[in-house]
Amino acid sequence: MTEVAAVLFVNDAFYEAFRARDLDTMEQLWARESPITCIHPGWRALTTRQEVMGAWHDILASEDVPDIACRGAQAFVAGESAFVICYEVLGGGVLVATNIFQKERGSWRLVHHQAGPCDLPTEAVLDEEEEEPEESAIQ
Amino acid sequence: MTEVAAVLFVNDAFYEAFRARDLDTMEQLWARESPITCIHPGWRALTTRQEVMGAWHDILASEDVPDIACRGAQAFVAGESAFVICYEVLGGGVLVATNIFQKERGSWRLVHHQAGPCDLPTEAVLDEEEEEPEESAIQ
Repeated sequence: MTEVAAVLFVNDAFYEAFRARDLDTMEQLWARESPITCIHPGWRALTTRQEVMGAWHDILASEDVPDIACRGAQAFVAGESAFVICYEVLGGGVLVATNIFQKERGSWRLVHHQAGPCDLPTEAVLDEEEEEPEESAIQ
Repeated sequence: MTEVAAVLFVNDAFYEAFRARDLDTMEQLWARESPITCIHPGWRALTTRQEVMGAWHDILASEDVPDIACRGAQAFVAGESAFVICYEVLGGGVLVATNIFQKERGSWRLVHHQAGPCDLPTEAVLDEEEEEPEESAIQ
């Protein structure tokens, strides 16, 4: 598996944990040895592990959490760091996200997530999935 | 200068180029050897150099471009990669941003920028600047 594919695999696992409301897996996907930060749509930045994981606890426990699907993910790898940009389809709307990963003891882990509103129509993003996902590797 | 300070210096230069509508400096601040991507508030992701720089050309040439100030920047460095999270005060509102940097031939260069809306009041973000900026280094 290339590093790009490995990063996209963990990115998919992140959205699968979100969709399944699986807090244990969500916690395992985030880095343990690096600082972690998170910016949910419209929120201020969360900059401590307690804040980041507390928010995931609340979001995944909420009865209002919408179904989420990730589309059009592109990964950019540079050594032991990587980031993914992708679209999130949820609640009938589209968000666009940046997910940053760091390799820890051989495994890619999330160190940062930002999602914000995007003016693309849902259909455009869902249709995009028909194409092969693009991949790019720095280095 | 520590790597964290060096990254924050380039992050400041990015906002100074934005404020000064200085397209030449803006182009110099982005990576040349790595792919670059950009997500402006509400936009779809721009994923080619031509798209990213074309958008900066249009934004900086616009008569409507508001004054911008960066506040509360925090840098996270891991080897030759880094990211900054910060607030942007512009047009009477607050955005929150993620800026990703890659070291190229000894200089930190932008490889990605995402900004999105944030519900913090302008006063809260401007007041925050009274404190010393926080710095964090992974590794």
